[in-house]
Formats: sequence, C-alpha cells, structure tokens
Amino acid sequence: MARIAYIENMKEWSDSFHFAHSVSVRFSETDMFGHLNNTVPFTYFEEARIEYLKAISFMADWLNPEHDRIPVVADLQCDFLAQVYFGEELLIHVKAHSIGNSSVDIHYKGTRQDDTIVFTGRGTIVQISRHTGKPVFWSEQQKNKLEAEKLQHAAHACSAG
Amino acid sequence: MARIAYIENMKEWSDSFHFAHSVSVRFSETDMFGHLNNTVPFTYFEEARIEYLKAISFMADWLNPEHDRIPVVADLQCDFLAQVYFGEELLIHVKAHSIGNSSVDIHYKGTRQDDTIVFTGRGTIVQISRHTGKPVFWSEQQKNKLEAEKLQHAAHACSAG
Amino acid sequence: MARIAYIENMKEWSDSFHFAHSVSVRFSETDMFGHLNNTVPFTYFEEARIEYLKAISFMADWLNPEHDRIPVVADLQCDFLAQVYFGEELLIHVKAHSIGNSSVDIHYKGTRQDDTIVFTGRGTIVQISRHTGKPVFWSEQQKNKLEAEKLQHAAHACSAG
Amino acid sequence: MARIAYIENMKEWSDSFHFAHSVSVRFSETDMFGHLNNTVPFTYFEEARIEYLKAISFMADWLNPEHDRIPVVADLQCDFLAQVYFGEELLIHVKAHSIGNSSVDIHYKGTRQDDTIVFTGRGTIVQISRHTGKPVFWSEQQKNKLEAEKLQHAAHACSAG
Repeated sequence: MARIAYIENMKEWSDSFHFAHSVSVRFSETDMFGHLNNTVPFTYFEEARIEYLKAISFMADWLNPEHDRIPVVADLQCDFLAQVYFGEELLIHVKAHSIGNSSVDIHYKGTRQDDTIVFTGRGTIVQISRHTGKPVFWSEQQKNKLEAEKLQHAAHACSAG
Repeated sequence: MARIAYIENMKEWSDSFHFAHSVSVRFSETDMFGHLNNTVPFTYFEEARIEYLKAISFMADWLNPEHDRIPVVADLQCDFLAQVYFGEELLIHVKAHSIGNSSVDIHYKGTRQDDTIVFTGRGTIVQISRHTGKPVFWSEQQKNKLEAEKLQHAAHACSAG
Repeated sequence: MARIAYIENMKEWSDSFHFAHSVSVRFSETDMFGHLNNTVPFTYFEEARIEYLKAISFMADWLNPEHDRIPVVADLQCDFLAQVYFGEELLIHVKAHSIGNSSVDIHYKGTRQDDTIVFTGRGTIVQISRHTGKPVFWSEQQKNKLEAEKLQHAAHACSAG
Repeated sequence: MARIAYIENMKEWSDSFHFAHSVSVRFSETDMFGHLNNTVPFTYFEEARIEYLKAISFMADWLNPEHDRIPVVADLQCDFLAQVYFGEELLIHVKAHSIGNSSVDIHYKGTRQDDTIVFTGRGTIVQISRHTGKPVFWSEQQKNKLEAEKLQHAAHACSAG
C-alpha cells in the first residue's frame, strides 16, 4: 500500500470513522477494463458526504434557495487501493477531519463487506455566499456541531484501538 | 434492422437532416461489456439538441434565469442499431420533426464517419413556465423559426433523394 | 397525462408490477434547472433491470466472461410525467411484458413514496452471442422463467384490480 | 488561490504544458447549484489523458485485449480554482511530470479561453499486468518516450519564462 499524505497512521485513521453510507456499484459505472471506472468514487464521496451533512443537520440550510450560504468543494482526492467490480456493495465512511473558519476537511474511506479498504480520499468544502462567492464563517452553532463530530471520531479511534 | 415506429421510410428520414454535432466516445462511457453503455446516447442527444437549439437561437432566452420560459423533455427514446466502441467519432444529427402549440418533436440520428447509422432516436420537448410548470405557447417568432427548419429538412430530403 | 403508446390501460398496467428496486436521487444527477436530469432515469432503469434479472436468475450466466451469451439493449424509451428533485427516494418497478424467441420487452415504472408515477418506460433486450453478435434463442429454462414472470404480473393486476 | 502541494511555482508549472485537449461543458454535467458538478473534471482528466497517451503512442498497446499490459489509476486529485458554467469551452492541458519504474505522475491544468486556470490536478498511473495485477516495468521504448516528453515540458517552461 502506497503512503498516503493525509493518513499518518492507517489503523488509527481507519478506526476513527463513525458514519457510513452504503452504495452498490452500477453496471453503467464500470468501464471496458471490466472494473469500476476511476471517476466514479468521487460521485460516491459526494453522495456519502451529503448524507453525512444531513445527519449533522447542515444540508437543510444549504439547499434552501432563499438562503445565501452554500458549500463548494475546494479540492478532492482519491487513492485507489483495490479494484472494484460490478455489483459490489461498498460502505463509504465519512468524517470531519479538521475545521477551519469557513471550511472543513472531510475524509473518506470506501470498504468492502469484509472491511477491506478499496479506496481512501479527502477534500475541503468551504461555505460561501451564493451572491458574493466569498467564504462565510461558520456560525457558532455550525462550529459546535463540527467540533462535536471531531470528538466522536477521537472517541471511536480510542475505543477501537 | 428492426422497424422503428417513428421512421416511415429510412432513406427519406435519413436524408432529411441538415444539422449535426460531433462527439467522441469517452473511456468512462464504455462498460464492462466493452462497448458504449446504452444510457450514454441520451447524453449525446441532449448535447446535440442544445447545439441545434443554439443554432436556431432558442437557447439564450431559456438559459436566462430571469426569464420564465424553460424547455422540459416530455419523452425520449433510442433505437440501438450497431455497437459503438471507445474512441469512435460520431455525428449526432438533429432535426425538428413536427411542431405543436408549445412543443416540438425532435429526431436524432447517430452515424459513424462512414455514414453507418449506429442509433436513432426521438423525443418531445415542451416549453413551460418555470413558475407555474404549465406549457407556454410558442411565440410567433419561435414558431416561424421552427417552421423554417422543417422546410429546410424537406428540401434536404428532396435534393438528397 | 399524455397518451403513452405502450400503455393501454394505465391502472391495469400500473397494478401489474410485482418487483421494485429503490434508488435515491444523487446531487450529481440534478442539473442547472434544479431537477433530475432527463438522461438519468435510463441509468435507474439499467440498475433496476439488472436487479430484476438477478432475482429471476438470469444474470449469473451473462456476467460470466467465459460464457458466450450476453444481453444487449435493442431500444429504450422513457416518458417523464413529473419533475423529480434531489434527495427523493424512488421505486423503480420492473416487469417482463412480452417474450420473443431471443428477446424480452421490459417495462418500467418510477414512483414516489406516495405512489405518484414520475416516469414510465420500456425497452427490448436481446440475448446475443458475444462472438458472432447474432441473437441466441432462449433456452427452455430461460423461457419458462420469463413465462412464470408474466403469469405473476397478470395475477398481480387481477388481485389489485 | 490556495497553496497546492504539487505545484511549487505556479507560473513555471503553468508554462510547462505543451499538450491540450478541448472539452465543452455539457448541460447534464451541471448540477442544481447552477455550475459544473465537481465530479466531472475527473472525467475531463481521463479524456484528455487518453488523448495525450495516444499522442505519445502509449494507448494502442494498452487497448489491445490480447496484450497483457494495461494502465490503472493509482490516485487522482483536483483543486477547484474557479466556478465553471454550462457551455464553457475549456482546454485540459496534460503533462508527464515525473517518471517511476512502472508509473508516471501526470499533471492537469484546466483553462478558459482567456487562459484563466479553473482547476488543476494530478494523478499517478501504473502499468500493470491484466492477469497478475502486478506492476510491469516500462520498456526502454516507453521510458524513452516519457523522458522525451519531460524534456519538452522543461523547454516550454524555459522559453515561456
């Protein structure tokens, strides 16, 4: 397994997730090499990230077209550790890894049912104003929710360790 | 070749197109059977239809978020006549086939560079109000443009015949 | 609701399905008009069709790269009855509608949780030889399974009627 | 503009590309926030990378199903610098940045027609055996081609500097 810059200790990192969303690999998501096309995990990341953000009550505000705040993705990356095939059921694990003033670095782990990690990833999302395009600081309430998430990840990593 | 309900005479039909847009088959658009996945031609139809509607000056109004009129797709169909592979350059031909009060039936023909037809298709688009969701009649100007298109198709079919 | 050529009696047709597969509308499947892009239901049809074909034990043979028989899609169509939005949970109902020598006409119905029909569709799949590309007749076993399916649809339509 | 780990000097980096492939943003590639969905640039990277690999004569061998060598993507990342909208024509620039024994690190730059950079990216591809899944060292010929590419990038960066 290649060294991955955003993962210091794979076991600790892997144990710290406590949210996961399930996806099945679609036939249309394979390519002529017979496996999952490498552009597709980013779609899984988006789907799982939104489920995670719903679970911590961030989405309702962002999806309201009358509200000014929306999230944008600043960067995204994925490391492919194992080939994935049609029909596989994957769990996409999501966590808030570190928190900025108007941004959050989100980490992803894709696993098979036997817990093999098939890909890992990360990416920063930034809260911006729909109208100005400028970053908007987290509210106290938003920041508290994200901090509570981080504590839970730490607790998970400890109890699993 | 199977009979296709929306094509009476294949030669006449085929000759009547005078607009085409070029696409290349992407690697990510193939599937594990090694050919173009069957959901993708509908994406090509959309891309080519929009280029066609731009060419006849219909898109600018519809894409203006302050204008109330937008097009919606009422139905879509595709008949797959030949397998298509990665890297092929296809021409997607488009024409306005028949014109309603607020709708237009658009036909599609996908061809290889040697003119082989690889798929055909059709679908109705309807002009609706963004706010009420109800159909909005074509303006005189819109109707005149669509009628002019139909005449050109007929002329093409004749001169090619 | 427009008349749809492949549906004689909407209530009877609608009642005759007995298999359904659930999908959630992904954020990446919406477009700038704010709703589900019209190319996506064909992806849902494929996903639900494969689940259906698995349920009636057709897929294992077709997915075995050492076996010669594979299914290809001969045509596909979709009628869009209602706009669909991000996050909606849809049921994609599937049935074998009529059976040929090497083909089967499959029908689709997409519904919201309140049973509203949001789109309908159909398409023929044909069993072909991977090597010759020619149609391959259904085996007795395959034909029996498809006929059993049709009887079940009829039973459903009756009991629901 | 955020610091990007794989770019030391943005001007030098930006000047060093000498291959580009053009793409148009499809309507189906936008999302309900009105801009290009963030999963799509990875599809553009794949399309442009393959055109680049064709241009330096790497693809023919890899696409031959009787040959054992195929490329796999080990990782991928994208930094989003500006929002992109429907209908924009982008150039996707590609270069071989650094060369391993069986791998190559490929860099990407997406630009508007006025040369604004809208996204940057990178990712390693590895040549593996279709059958064993293990890395396969570059042949002398392959290595020479990649080295020639690198020299050309350097020359470009100098002459542009």
